Amino acid sequence: MNNNMLKSILQGVQDGTLPIDQGLDKLRDLPFLDIGHTKIDLHRSLRNGFPEVIYGSGKTPEQVANIFAHMQEHGNVLATRITEKTAEHVCAQFPEVQYNATARTLTWVKNAISYGTTEIAIITAGTSDLPVAEEAKVTCEILGTRASILSDVGVAGIHRLFDRMEDIRKASVLIVIAGMEGALASVIGGLVDQPIIAVPTSVGYGANFSGLSALLGMLTSCASGVTVVNIDNGFGAACAACKIARLIEK
Amino acid sequence: MNNNMLKSILQGVQDGTLPIDQGLDKLRDLPFLDIGHTKIDLHRSLRNGFPEVIYGSGKTPEQVANIFAHMQEHGNVLATRITEKTAEHVCAQFPEVQYNATARTLTWVKNAISYGTTEIAIITAGTSDLPVAEEAKVTCEILGTRASILSDVGVAGIHRLFDRMEDIRKASVLIVIAGMEGALASVIGGLVDQPIIAVPTSVGYGANFSGLSALLGMLTSCASGVTVVNIDNGFGAACAACKIARLIEK
Amino acid sequence: MNNNMLKSILQGVQDGTLPIDQGLDKLRDLPFLDIGHTKIDLHRSLRNGFPEVIYGSGKTPEQVANIFAHMQEHGNVLATRITEKTAEHVCAQFPEVQYNATARTLTWVKNAISYGTTEIAIITAGTSDLPVAEEAKVTCEILGTRASILSDVGVAGIHRLFDRMEDIRKASVLIVIAGMEGALASVIGGLVDQPIIAVPTSVGYGANFSGLSALLGMLTSCASGVTVVNIDNGFGAACAACKIARLIEK
Amino acid sequence: MNNNMLKSILQGVQDGTLPIDQGLDKLRDLPFLDIGHTKIDLHRSLRNGFPEVIYGSGKTPEQVANIFAHMQEHGNVLATRITEKTAEHVCAQFPEVQYNATARTLTWVKNAISYGTTEIAIITAGTSDLPVAEEAKVTCEILGTRASILSDVGVAGIHRLFDRMEDIRKASVLIVIAGMEGALASVIGGLVDQPIIAVPTSVGYGANFSGLSALLGMLTSCASGVTVVNIDNGFGAACAACKIARLIEK
Amino acid sequence: MNNNMLKSILQGVQDGTLPIDQGLDKLRDLPFLDIGHTKIDLHRSLRNGFPEVIYGSGKTPEQVANIFAHMQEHGNVLATRITEKTAEHVCAQFPEVQYNATARTLTWVKNAISYGTTEIAIITAGTSDLPVAEEAKVTCEILGTRASILSDVGVAGIHRLFDRMEDIRKASVLIVIAGMEGALASVIGGLVDQPIIAVPTSVGYGANFSGLSALLGMLTSCASGVTVVNIDNGFGAACAACKIARLIEK
Amino acid sequence: MNNNMLKSILQGVQDGTLPIDQGLDKLRDLPFLDIGHTKIDLHRSLRNGFPEVIYGSGKTPEQVANIFAHMQEHGNVLATRITEKTAEHVCAQFPEVQYNATARTLTWVKNAISYGTTEIAIITAGTSDLPVAEEAKVTCEILGTRASILSDVGVAGIHRLFDRMEDIRKASVLIVIAGMEGALASVIGGLVDQPIIAVPTSVGYGANFSGLSALLGMLTSCASGVTVVNIDNGFGAACAACKIARLIEK
Amino acid sequence: MNNNMLKSILQGVQDGTLPIDQGLDKLRDLPFLDIGHTKIDLHRSLRNGFPEVIYGSGKTPEQVANIFAHMQEHGNVLATRITEKTAEHVCAQFPEVQYNATARTLTWVKNAISYGTTEIAIITAGTSDLPVAEEAKVTCEILGTRASILSDVGVAGIHRLFDRMEDIRKASVLIVIAGMEGALASVIGGLVDQPIIAVPTSVGYGANFSGLSALLGMLTSCASGVTVVNIDNGFGAACAACKIARLIEK
Amino acid sequence: MNNNMLKSILQGVQDGTLPIDQGLDKLRDLPFLDIGHTKIDLHRSLRNGFPEVIYGSGKTPEQVANIFAHMQEHGNVLATRITEKTAEHVCAQFPEVQYNATARTLTWVKNAISYGTTEIAIITAGTSDLPVAEEAKVTCEILGTRASILSDVGVAGIHRLFDRMEDIRKASVLIVIAGMEGALASVIGGLVDQPIIAVPTSVGYGANFSGLSALLGMLTSCASGVTVVNIDNGFGAACAACKIARLIEK
Repeated sequence: MNNNMLKSILQGVQDGTLPIDQGLDKLRDLPFLDIGHTKIDLHRSLRNGFPEVIYGSGKTPEQVANIFAHMQEHGNVLATRITEKTAEHVCAQFPEVQYNATARTLTWVKNAISYGTTEIAIITAGTSDLPVAEEAKVTCEILGTRASILSDVGVAGIHRLFDRMEDIRKASVLIVIAGMEGALASVIGGLVDQPIIAVPTSVGYGANFSGLSALLGMLTSCASGVTVVNIDNGFGAACAACKIARLIEK
Repeated sequence: MNNNMLKSILQGVQDGTLPIDQGLDKLRDLPFLDIGHTKIDLHRSLRNGFPEVIYGSGKTPEQVANIFAHMQEHGNVLATRITEKTAEHVCAQFPEVQYNATARTLTWVKNAISYGTTEIAIITAGTSDLPVAEEAKVTCEILGTRASILSDVGVAGIHRLFDRMEDIRKASVLIVIAGMEGALASVIGGLVDQPIIAVPTSVGYGANFSGLSALLGMLTSCASGVTVVNIDNGFGAACAACKIARLIEK
Repeated sequence: MNNNMLKSILQGVQDGTLPIDQGLDKLRDLPFLDIGHTKIDLHRSLRNGFPEVIYGSGKTPEQVANIFAHMQEHGNVLATRITEKTAEHVCAQFPEVQYNATARTLTWVKNAISYGTTEIAIITAGTSDLPVAEEAKVTCEILGTRASILSDVGVAGIHRLFDRMEDIRKASVLIVIAGMEGALASVIGGLVDQPIIAVPTSVGYGANFSGLSALLGMLTSCASGVTVVNIDNGFGAACAACKIARLIEK
Repeated sequence: MNNNMLKSILQGVQDGTLPIDQGLDKLRDLPFLDIGHTKIDLHRSLRNGFPEVIYGSGKTPEQVANIFAHMQEHGNVLATRITEKTAEHVCAQFPEVQYNATARTLTWVKNAISYGTTEIAIITAGTSDLPVAEEAKVTCEILGTRASILSDVGVAGIHRLFDRMEDIRKASVLIVIAGMEGALASVIGGLVDQPIIAVPTSVGYGANFSGLSALLGMLTSCASGVTVVNIDNGFGAACAACKIARLIEK
Repeated sequence: MNNNMLKSILQGVQDGTLPIDQGLDKLRDLPFLDIGHTKIDLHRSLRNGFPEVIYGSGKTPEQVANIFAHMQEHGNVLATRITEKTAEHVCAQFPEVQYNATARTLTWVKNAISYGTTEIAIITAGTSDLPVAEEAKVTCEILGTRASILSDVGVAGIHRLFDRMEDIRKASVLIVIAGMEGALASVIGGLVDQPIIAVPTSVGYGANFSGLSALLGMLTSCASGVTVVNIDNGFGAACAACKIARLIEK
Repeated sequence: MNNNMLKSILQGVQDGTLPIDQGLDKLRDLPFLDIGHTKIDLHRSLRNGFPEVIYGSGKTPEQVANIFAHMQEHGNVLATRITEKTAEHVCAQFPEVQYNATARTLTWVKNAISYGTTEIAIITAGTSDLPVAEEAKVTCEILGTRASILSDVGVAGIHRLFDRMEDIRKASVLIVIAGMEGALASVIGGLVDQPIIAVPTSVGYGANFSGLSALLGMLTSCASGVTVVNIDNGFGAACAACKIARLIEK
Repeated sequence: MNNNMLKSILQGVQDGTLPIDQGLDKLRDLPFLDIGHTKIDLHRSLRNGFPEVIYGSGKTPEQVANIFAHMQEHGNVLATRITEKTAEHVCAQFPEVQYNATARTLTWVKNAISYGTTEIAIITAGTSDLPVAEEAKVTCEILGTRASILSDVGVAGIHRLFDRMEDIRKASVLIVIAGMEGALASVIGGLVDQPIIAVPTSVGYGANFSGLSALLGMLTSCASGVTVVNIDNGFGAACAACKIARLIEK
Repeated sequence: MNNNMLKSILQGVQDGTLPIDQGLDKLRDLPFLDIGHTKIDLHRSLRNGFPEVIYGSGKTPEQVANIFAHMQEHGNVLATRITEKTAEHVCAQFPEVQYNATARTLTWVKNAISYGTTEIAIITAGTSDLPVAEEAKVTCEILGTRASILSDVGVAGIHRLFDRMEDIRKASVLIVIAGMEGALASVIGGLVDQPIIAVPTSVGYGANFSGLSALLGMLTSCASGVTVVNIDNGFGAACAACKIARLIEK
C-alpha cells in the first residue's frame, strides 16, 4: 500500500475532484488494481504482461474449452497438465491453439512473443524426465525467455554430462530435472556458478516413493545454492527461472 | 573443461614453451584449478573470489581452530553452525575473527568486502526464525551482497506484512523464512514479482514434525515460482540469492 | 445416564405403575432411547431432528437404494460420497431424491427445512476445492443452517480475499477449504474473530502427498484458534459448524 | 476493511475535520488499529480486549522478562510454554505475575477478568494429559470464559466417563484431550451434541510416534463434527473454544 | 527336533531294523515330516489337521484352479482374496467349491468340520468392515471353531455396543475389526476380560492413510492386552483366535 | 449390563427390600461395580483379582510414592517404567517394595501369588531385548502366571533357536521379543502351533527408525496367527498372554 | 584420468605425431572413450562387453521398438519392465527377440553367451516373488553368469529352506528375494558365508506399505553382511551379483 | 545339513563305533557345531576363523569388560559402537586391547592377522563420514582384508573424485560412504565396474531426516549394481565386502 497513492486519493477527495464513492472504490481496489477475472480458476495469474495460465488437472474437456472461450479477449494463454482428450476438444474449437503432447500443454499465442536476451538450459537426467522438461520449456517460451533442453546426461554416465558442459556454461540459469536419487543437481551444482533450480521427478519405483527420494536428495544436496520446486513441477521451475531472467534483463 | 584452455595448453606443449610435465600438471588441475586444500572439510568451497566456508557441525573447537590456522593465507573465511564454546576457542586464538551468536557464525574478514549494487531482503514470519535469517544475512554479506532483515511479518497478522511491502518491493531477491505452516512464502509470492527463495524452519511443535509442515507447505505453494531450500538452511538460501545477484551485476 | 430418569423409573416400579418387565426395557434402552435402526450403515446418525446420513463410499447402487427404501418412514435423508451411477439408480426409484453432482450427495427432503438465523461462510482457495465446499453446503442446509460459498480466494492473489472480507465478516462461522499448502486458513485466521473450521483438500500433486501438506499446514497454523477436520471432509466441517450454529440459536 | 470505516474517514477528510496526514495514518493503520508493538514476538496477539500472549518456547529468561517489562502499560498478559527457570526470573522481577507449573504458563492479571456466562469442559483421558488441560484452562480463563477440568476419564474404563456425563452435558463447548489412540474424542462425540475440539497429546511411546497416533485417530474419528488442533496444543483449543463462547454470548 | 524321535531313529539304525539310507531320509525329513507339496504357493500351510490355505492375491484364475486340481486328494481347502472372476473359473471346474462373495473366499469342504466347544465373537465398527469380518468367520469355521459376527457397533453410537455386551461376554475370544480411528478395540478392551485380537481396516479416507490411523490407534490402545494383526487381515486374526480356541479345548 | 442383575435390582425395589436410593446407587454403579479409585492414574486397572498397575512414565518420584501410599489398603501393586531415582525414593518409604532394575518395575506383593498351571515362554532375539522381556516376566508373575525367559535365540544363528525348541514347545503361550527386523516371530510362527504375541523393540539404529522396522515386519509376518503389541510393550504382551492363560485354566 | 594416457597424448602432440585438433578430441573423449550413443535412454549401459539394457517403464511400444531398431548393429540387448502389449509390438518386428512374460523382459541374443564358471542362486520366499526372481535370472544370464531359482522357501516353513541348503551352499553368490517381512534374508544370512544381495518385494498388503516392511527389515537384518537393493529390483541385484562373479572369474 | 556328515554319523552308530547317546549329541549339534558361547550377546558371531564381534550399543562398561573376560580363550575380538568411557574401563583391565576413538571400536588381536591379497577401497563424501569409514576399515582388517580410506571426495567438487580414480580402480571392492543426498554412490557406480557397497550416513540436517535422504537416494541410484546397507553401518558394509574378498581369494 503505497503512501503516495493513498495521499493522492485523499487529496482528490479533499479537493473535491474525487467524490467519496469513487474514492471508496479506489481504496478498496488498491491492492489488486490490475486483476480482471478472479472467477476463472487460473494456475497462477502472472501479472505484468505474463500470459494467463490454466491448471488443467481435474478439469473436464468442456470446462477447459469454456475457459479458453472466456480468454479470447485476453493475451497469450498457457494451459498445463492437459490430457490428449481435452486437447482434442479444445483444438477442435480453437484451431489456432497448439497442443504439445509431451509437455501436456496447450498454448494460444495471439501476440508474437518477444524474447529477452537471457537463455535457460533445461537439463534432464534421463529421457523419462522429458515431459517435465518440455513443460518447463513451453512455459519459459511463452513467458518470453528462450530455453533449450539437454537431455539424458544423468550421473550414471557422467562423461555425457561433461560433454555438454560448454552448452551448460553458456546459459544464465539452469533447470536441472532428475528422478531416482536426483544426484544430477548436486554434481552440476559443484561444477558451475549459475543459479540452479532443481526439479525432482516421480521417475523411478520402489524406494523412490513417487519422487520422495529425488526430492529429499535435492533438498540435502551437498552443493550450496541449489533450490528446489515440487515433484514434477516443470511449470514452477520455469516461472522461477524467468523471474531471474527478467531481473537480468532489467 | 573449456576447449580454449585445453587448446592453449596443447599449443604451449607443441611450441615447447610448456614442458610435458608442467602440461601434465596443468591438465590434471584443470577442473579444480583454484582449489588449495581439499583435505579440509569445507561447507562448500565457493570458487571465484568467494570466501572459504567451514561447516562447523560435528567438529570440535580444536578442529575448527586448526582449520582457521590453515586458512591464514587464504582470503575471507566464513564458518557456520558454530557453538558458543567453539567460538570462544577460535576467537581466543584469532582475535580478529568475529562471532555472531544469533547466526552461529564466525567470520574472518581480511580483505574489505566490496559490495555489489543488488539488495536482498530477508523476511521472517516470527522472531524465532531470526537465527536462520541472521545466518543468511552474514552469508550474503561475506559473499559481497547487501542484505537486510524484515522480521516478524507472519501471515497471522497480515497487516504487518503490508506495512513493509514498500521495503520488500525495493529488494531484487527475497529470502522468505518461516516455520509452522510456512504460509508467508505463498502470500508474498502472490504479491511480488521478484525471485523468492523460501526457507522452511523447524520452529513449531507437534504436527510441525521438525520442519516438515513448512517444507511441504512451501513446496506445494500455490504461488508459482517459489523455490525452496533445506529446513533451517539460511546459508544455502543466501548462496542461491547471491548467485542471482552476481548474475544481475554482470 | 440421568439420575432423575433412573429415579422416576424406579419410582414407577415401586409404585407398581411400571411393571418390572417394562422397567427392564426402559433401563436397557436408556442410553440409546431415540435410536431406531442400528443395522443400517449410517454415516453418523445425528439425533434430535437431524436427518439420517448415509456414507455412500464402498456401497453398491443396490445397497444405497435399499437403504433409501428403509428410510421411507424416516425424516430427511442425506447421502454423501455418491457416484453418478449410484445416483441414477436411486433417483430412478425415488424421483423426489435430488442428486448434486459436484457435492456427490443425494438429499431427500420430505419435511421442509426450517433454517435458523445463523449463516456459515464456506471459503475455498481454488475452484478445484469446490466439490468439498458443495458437500459442506449441502450438509449445512439439510442440517438447517444457511451457508454460502465464496470460492477461489486463495492467498496467491490475496486481493481476491480482501475483496470478500465484508461477506466473510458477516458470517458467524467460517469453513475454510484449501489444498496445496493450505495457507488460506492462517491468513483468514489472522484477519477475523469468528470460529474457523479448516478443511485440507487433496488438491495438488507431488509433495502434497494426497493432502498431507495442507493438513500439516493447517494443524500448525500460526493463527490461533483454527481447528481442523480430515482431508476432503466437507461433511464433517459442516457438522461441526452446525453444532456451533445450534448453540448460538439456543 | 469495513466500508463504513473507510467512508467515515473520507467524510472527515472532505469535511475538513480530519487533516490529510491524520487520514493517511488512519488508513494505514486500519487493519491493525489496536496493535502496538509488532517487534515483540507474540504467540498470537488477540485483538478486541483479549490479553497479549507470549509464546515462550525458545526464548531466554531475560528475553521473556524484557517482554513483560514492555507490557507494563498493556492489559492482561499470558505467556505459554514457560520453563521453571524462566518463571523464577520473571516472577522475581514482577511479583504480581503468577506461574502455573503444570500449565507452564505465566499470567499477569492487571484488570479483573469479567467472565461470560458460557462454560467450557476440558476432559482428559489420563492424568498425564493434565499439562495440556491446564494450559487450556488458564487460557480460557484469561480470555474471560470459565472452564473446568474433568480428568482421567479415558475409554479403557468407560464407566468413569459415564459417571461424569452430567457434568459434561452442562458445558457449552468441550475440549477433549487424549494421547495414545485418542479414542476419547470419538466416544464423547457419539454421546453429546456440543461442539468438540479434540487435542491429541504426545503421551505414549512406540507406535504413538510423538502424538501421531492420537492425531490421526482424532482426524479420522467416526463421530461427525469433531475438530482437531495441533498435538499438545491446549492454548489453541482454548482460543477456538472461547471464540465459540464469545459468539454465544453476543 | 524331538530327542525321542532322534533316539528311535538311531535305535533303529543300531538294531539294523532301519537301513542307513532310510535313516538318512528320515533325518532329513524330520523338521517337515507332515508336509506334502512345498511347490504349491500356500497362504500358510497349517499343519495338524488344519486345511490347506491358498493366498489368491496376484494369481490368475487358471493358477488358482490348477492349485485346486492338485489339492483333490488333500483335506479341506480354503482360498482367500479371491476375485469374482477367479471364483467363477474355479467353481465351474469344481462345483462343490463354495464362493463367499463378501469374504472373497473359496472353501472346499470334503470332510465334515467337527466344531470345538469354543465360540469366537467377531465384532465390527461399521458395515464397511464386513468383508474383513466375513473372511475371519469363514477361516474360523474351516479351522473348526464356531464364530458369529456382531456388526455395526462402533463407538460413535456406543449404546449399540452396550446392547450387545451380553453376546460379547459369552464368547471366549474376541476379534474386533474397525477402520477410521479404530477406537472400538480400546473401548471393548476396557469392558471385558477376554483375549482381544484387533484388526485395523483400510475403511476411511484422507488421514486414514489406507489403514494407518486404525493400525497406530490399536497398537497404542490404552486398554492393556489388546493385540493387533495387519490391516484388513481377517484371516490372520482368525488363525490367532483359533490357536487360542484349540488351547482351551485341549 | 446383565439382564438378570437389572431384574434382581428392580425386583428388590418392587419388593421393598431395596430402597429407591440404594437401587439408584446400584444402577449407577453397575458398569464399574468393582472399581475403587478412579482418580489415581493407573496403567490399566485390571479387575477380578488382578493387581493395581501404575504407569510410571512422566511421573515424579514423589507422585509415584504418593500413589503407593494410597494403595496400602489395596492388593498387590505393579508399577512399570520406573527410573532408578524413583525406585530409590519409593523403596526408602516402603521397604517391602521390590525394584527390578532391568525390567524397570516396582512390585509390592502383599498377598502371596497363587500361580495357575499355565506356562508362558518369553523368547528374545538378543540380549538387548532383555528389559522388555523382564517387564513381561514380572507382569506375568504378578498376574499369577509362571513365565520363563529364553534369551538370545535370534535368527542370525538359527541353531540357537532349534536348541531351545523343546522348551518352547512346552509353553502354552509364547511372547516373542525382537528388534531390528523382528524376523524371530515369523520363524517361530512357522515352527509351532501355540498363540504367539510378538513385541517389536526399538533395539537397532538407522533404518530401524525406533522400532518401526520390527513393528512392520511382525505385522506383515508370513506366519499366520502372529499378533503384535506396541513397540517395547512387554507389559501389554504379558497382559494378553495372561488373559489366554486364565481362559485355559477356567 | 590416467596419468600415462595423458602423458602419451601430450608426447604425441610434442612429437608432432598427433595434431592439436586430434589431441583436443582425445582429451575431451578420455573419460567416456568406449561410449557410443548417449541419446538412447538406456537402463544402465554396462560397458566392457555387457549388453545394452533398456528400461521399458513409461515407454510406448513404438518407442521401445524404435530403440531396438537402432540397436541392430549392437551386441546383445536386454529390455526390462516390458508389458505384454509392448512385447507383441517388438516381437512382431524383430522375430528373434524373446519375451519372458514372468520376468517382463525382452532379450535379443545375437552373439551366443559364453557363461563363466560362477553360479548364482536366486532364492524366493514365495511364488509371488517369482517375477522379480525371473528378472534377476534373465539379467544374470545375458550378463554371462548362470543362475538358478530356488522358489518358495520362506521362513514360515523353514524346513523347506533347510531342504535346499545343499543347493544354496553350492552357489557363489546368493540373491534372496522376499516380500512381507523379508525375514528370509536374515535367516539365510545366519546360515551361510556367501555374499547375499537381498531384494525386498512389494508382495503383501496393509502394513507392507508397498514393500517398505521388507525393505526396512532387510536393511536392519541381524545377520551381518547382507546388502540390499531397491524394492522389486531383480535387475539391480543381478548386476551386483554379476560384478562379483566377474571378479571371481578374473 | 550335509548328507555326508549325517551318513558318517549313522555309519558310526551302525558300526558301534559311536554310542547312541554320542550320536544323539552330534545330531543335535550339527547346525551349530563350531559355536561356543551363545549366551554372550555377539554382534554377529562370524564362524570359520572370523573374530568374535561384540555390539557395544546399550551395554554398560562392566558388561563389555565382562564379555572380554569371557573371550580370553577365544581368538581375535572386535567390539563396535564403544563409548570412550567403556573403552577406558575395558583397556584398564585388558591393556592389550586397542581403542580406535574415531571408529569407536575395541580390537583385541591375539593372533597376528594374515591378510589376503584383495584390497578394499573405502571412499567417503565428506570428513564427517569418517567415523563410519573407520569402523569399516577396522572391521575389514580384523577380518583379514586390507582396506584404505579415500576421504572427502564428494560430488560437490567432483574433480576431487577424478583425482583419486586411479586409486579407486585398483581396489577389488568399493565401500562408498555418504550422507546428505548420497550422490557419490551413483557417480562412482557410473565410472567403475567393481562391486559397490553403499553406506548412507546420518550426516546432514533437516530434510536429511537422520539419514533417510541418503538411504533412499542410494537405493534408487541410477547406476546399476549398487547395493546398500543400513544407515551408518560401516561394520556391515565391511562384512559384505570381506565375504566378496574371501570368495575372490578362494
